Amino acid sequence: MKNGLILKISCPDQPGVVAKIAGYISDHNGNLVEFNQFTDREKERFFARVEIDAENLEVDLDTFVNGFEALGKSLKADYTFRKLPYLMKTAILVTKTDHCLNDLLWRTQLGEMPIEITSIIGNRTDCQEIAEKAGIPFHFIEMDGEKKEAGFKKISQITKEEGVELVVLARFMQIMPEWFCDAYRGSMINIHHSFLPAFIGANPYRKAYERSVKYIGATCHYVTGDLDAGPIIEQEVSRIQHFHSVKDLVRLGRDCERTALARGIRLHVHERTIIDDNRAITFPD
Amino acid sequence: MKNGLILKISCPDQPGVVAKIAGYISDHNGNLVEFNQFTDREKERFFARVEIDAENLEVDLDTFVNGFEALGKSLKADYTFRKLPYLMKTAILVTKTDHCLNDLLWRTQLGEMPIEITSIIGNRTDCQEIAEKAGIPFHFIEMDGEKKEAGFKKISQITKEEGVELVVLARFMQIMPEWFCDAYRGSMINIHHSFLPAFIGANPYRKAYERSVKYIGATCHYVTGDLDAGPIIEQEVSRIQHFHSVKDLVRLGRDCERTALARGIRLHVHERTIIDDNRAITFPD
Amino acid sequence: MKNGLILKISCPDQPGVVAKIAGYISDHNGNLVEFNQFTDREKERFFARVEIDAENLEVDLDTFVNGFEALGKSLKADYTFRKLPYLMKTAILVTKTDHCLNDLLWRTQLGEMPIEITSIIGNRTDCQEIAEKAGIPFHFIEMDGEKKEAGFKKISQITKEEGVELVVLARFMQIMPEWFCDAYRGSMINIHHSFLPAFIGANPYRKAYERSVKYIGATCHYVTGDLDAGPIIEQEVSRIQHFHSVKDLVRLGRDCERTALARGIRLHVHERTIIDDNRAITFPD
Amino acid sequence: MKNGLILKISCPDQPGVVAKIAGYISDHNGNLVEFNQFTDREKERFFARVEIDAENLEVDLDTFVNGFEALGKSLKADYTFRKLPYLMKTAILVTKTDHCLNDLLWRTQLGEMPIEITSIIGNRTDCQEIAEKAGIPFHFIEMDGEKKEAGFKKISQITKEEGVELVVLARFMQIMPEWFCDAYRGSMINIHHSFLPAFIGANPYRKAYERSVKYIGATCHYVTGDLDAGPIIEQEVSRIQHFHSVKDLVRLGRDCERTALARGIRLHVHERTIIDDNRAITFPD
Repeated sequence: MKNGLILKISCPDQPGVVAKIAGYISDHNGNLVEFNQFTDREKERFFARVEIDAENLEVDLDTFVNGFEALGKSLKADYTFRKLPYLMKTAILVTKTDHCLNDLLWRTQLGEMPIEITSIIGNRTDCQEIAEKAGIPFHFIEMDGEKKEAGFKKISQITKEEGVELVVLARFMQIMPEWFCDAYRGSMINIHHSFLPAFIGANPYRKAYERSVKYIGATCHYVTGDLDAGPIIEQEVSRIQHFHSVKDLVRLGRDCERTALARGIRLHVHERTIIDDNRAITFPD
Repeated sequence: MKNGLILKISCPDQPGVVAKIAGYISDHNGNLVEFNQFTDREKERFFARVEIDAENLEVDLDTFVNGFEALGKSLKADYTFRKLPYLMKTAILVTKTDHCLNDLLWRTQLGEMPIEITSIIGNRTDCQEIAEKAGIPFHFIEMDGEKKEAGFKKISQITKEEGVELVVLARFMQIMPEWFCDAYRGSMINIHHSFLPAFIGANPYRKAYERSVKYIGATCHYVTGDLDAGPIIEQEVSRIQHFHSVKDLVRLGRDCERTALARGIRLHVHERTIIDDNRAITFPD
Repeated sequence: MKNGLILKISCPDQPGVVAKIAGYISDHNGNLVEFNQFTDREKERFFARVEIDAENLEVDLDTFVNGFEALGKSLKADYTFRKLPYLMKTAILVTKTDHCLNDLLWRTQLGEMPIEITSIIGNRTDCQEIAEKAGIPFHFIEMDGEKKEAGFKKISQITKEEGVELVVLARFMQIMPEWFCDAYRGSMINIHHSFLPAFIGANPYRKAYERSVKYIGATCHYVTGDLDAGPIIEQEVSRIQHFHSVKDLVRLGRDCERTALARGIRLHVHERTIIDDNRAITFPD
Repeated sequence: MKNGLILKISCPDQPGVVAKIAGYISDHNGNLVEFNQFTDREKERFFARVEIDAENLEVDLDTFVNGFEALGKSLKADYTFRKLPYLMKTAILVTKTDHCLNDLLWRTQLGEMPIEITSIIGNRTDCQEIAEKAGIPFHFIEMDGEKKEAGFKKISQITKEEGVELVVLARFMQIMPEWFCDAYRGSMINIHHSFLPAFIGANPYRKAYERSVKYIGATCHYVTGDLDAGPIIEQEVSRIQHFHSVKDLVRLGRDCERTALARGIRLHVHERTIIDDNRAITFPD
């Protein structure tokens, strides 16, 4: 869309909420392109994602957004607007394996997701060549042992300077410090190589093998201070059989990981996710 | 829901359509329980399914429904209302195999779908015992050779007398006459034992075997005069392997068939489908 | 097959093992119908399932089976033979919900699996009518509170008297005593309503909802003294979305449960499983 | 494996065939690593893939292979041996889109399949840069209009000179001439962007959209002179919904295409496929 807005909103469920939101848009001659709504019956809470074509809007975007405040307050709503089109500035953190990184680069080039990868940051140099071939700055940051805390400070500095809105952990093999998780709450996404909550932590494919499960999986989730326990955005599973070794699971798992991560990021970047406590509401695309 | 309405509506896409529909509901103190909307960009056409809690409605249901006419006309809309709760009167047509029938009976008993099975009609008697055990009238109607036309007349008479709203072909092995298709356009659902449009017509599992496909499937679709070519409501697929014989495909296919049929009927009965030419828009549940 | 044998065998991997087994069969004019083999590289252990047509066997079945002993010993093998055709005597334990029971009855009637259901045993009477309609003895056994131990004794007595080879827990809501688990080690199968090892224990759908997973699942496994931790035979998963309530998960989960249980039992009954520590090797069918 | 053989064999089903093959291997002190067997009951034909560790083989590989001839003849068998390890020389033909090419390059680098890509051949130059970055020779060959026949001659010349064993059509948008199909019968693999046999020919995603199917798919198959009708090696499907436009199907389809192609090539290159008339028997990995 050449000129538009995405509104994400949540508020207590109440009569007339759709009419009020749609009415505000209609009153200013905005056109609803997509209206996705969900009401949580347990919590009596309303969630919506609204895509608005602003081509014929009678006021400018800022006036429209500011004018929504009165309605937002009366609904006791949490809401955000994002102007279309946009590229979300994104930093990708990696260690050794490159399949998730490769996939994100490829999808970005194809225009599958509106992101601008401002930098690729690695605590190993294995992915440096890929970054360079793609023409994206690569920062090698040592994080082993005592260098960890200083490393995260550097990462924080880089992401701040670049105005990064989204941090992607593309098989980044470090446990994130709490202060970093807090700084990127709701905008840091990890791919875990298991079907969470099964096999939290290290070596999930070995554990899956030993437990003899019939499907392996991967989980794309928001990062919180709680290891592998943040809101789940997307998952993918793959059928396995008794003759698959741990090495086979790693191989088959790569496809799950890159798929789940790409789909999850796409949902986030298109503003199709709303975090509600430890759940992620995801309006499908 | 104890007292409510489902509105299904389609109309040319136009500014303010959501606001107007939601506004009408809100103006009469109806509460939106679910608002599903889809805009077809190719056709510039708007489709929606709206579930309304009428508990606090300020007018009675008929007044509300009648009052919508002015808005409906101004939007140039096709629309229907259905009052909640309801049981959709349904006739199930069968021949020999019983797996789809069994599944529908079981799901109906569990309350998975709001239907009342008024009769089971067979051109063979194989399913008679099942019908009787379930306490549902069974009509055996001979349809072989020259008796076919008279048989369909009888079926038509039964369904009319019972006020049947939905006819389900649960592996009913007869080609439907055009006049019958016309009479139940949009309210007759078939399960075809292939992943349409592959393997139209007879013996799809044999054909799938010979073509050595890696997935078999089943397709739940509205019946039109065009064999196996009506709007698709639901499909299901199942992985197969080289060692599966035609008999294995029949066995594995049964699970696809009953699953696809049950899901498709559930969508239809919950008024989650809108037919648009040869496409079925299906708001998921 | 009208006259045949299934051999299941495991032994240390060693040169010539396939040649020796196939040679023994060939030497007695048996015909290999299916030869499934798997070598565990980590353990250096060989596993096979061999289906033999005995139509032209030059000796009688017992002589053939007894004669295998010398080879079995020289291979240091664990092995079993089963004569074809057969019906495996099976007891099904239930509580309230009937979907798994219904599915097993239906598949048995269709001839999908060679079992004879000798009795249905319930600690509630909800499934009594289904049992009676199917013409299978139903035993109501009280197991609440202090009656539990005596109840299991009764079950044990029934299954012994009937020569039961397989005990199926078809949503049987009781924790099995250790002695009962020991008595039916390798021949008692449970369906757990989650994708194990996620959500062990009670209320898995509620837990899955709160964890906001994107797939739910069901797990068919051998019962050991360790709750929900025995060797996994089969699993099934189903995609879910944010708008699915716990009640929806229960509904969607039913389909996973009955599918995973039926497939798992079919594998066991066709002698397609070999338990190896806590893994179940499952030769697909 | 450092030193081994893969035997693929098919012959009329006959008593003792497994014993004879395994016996020949055992007699020469070869060790069976994997023995996959399938008997087609309709055709009474036996198929097998046998992986042999030749570490302790008492004769050299050529002697072993030549010595098998007597047994092969007595079994009336078609068979091939391949020496391990190996890299299969492969040419990839492309037009504009690069997702399948990218995926194959990536998987080759990771060691997921034992191929050596000797050249990338395009009738457009869109993929030239990718080839160059990967360090693989790129041949641009004009094929429009009258240049088509000469173009295929050139391709044939290149593949001959390079000793290419496998030709991959990675979304190569040209209909292959019959003589080229004949030259690479059984060793030319195409990816078709639909779930064959549905939507043969051009624009399958548009057709799938108009038919309103609920799954799209991709099909990896051997190329024969009959358009999109050769033996199917692998397929992949992806769930779609009513709100997906043709453009969305193209996007979602890319993931199906690259997955099905990669899996199919992996099966072929690991000698896990046996073509039998128009079926491909595929021993899973």
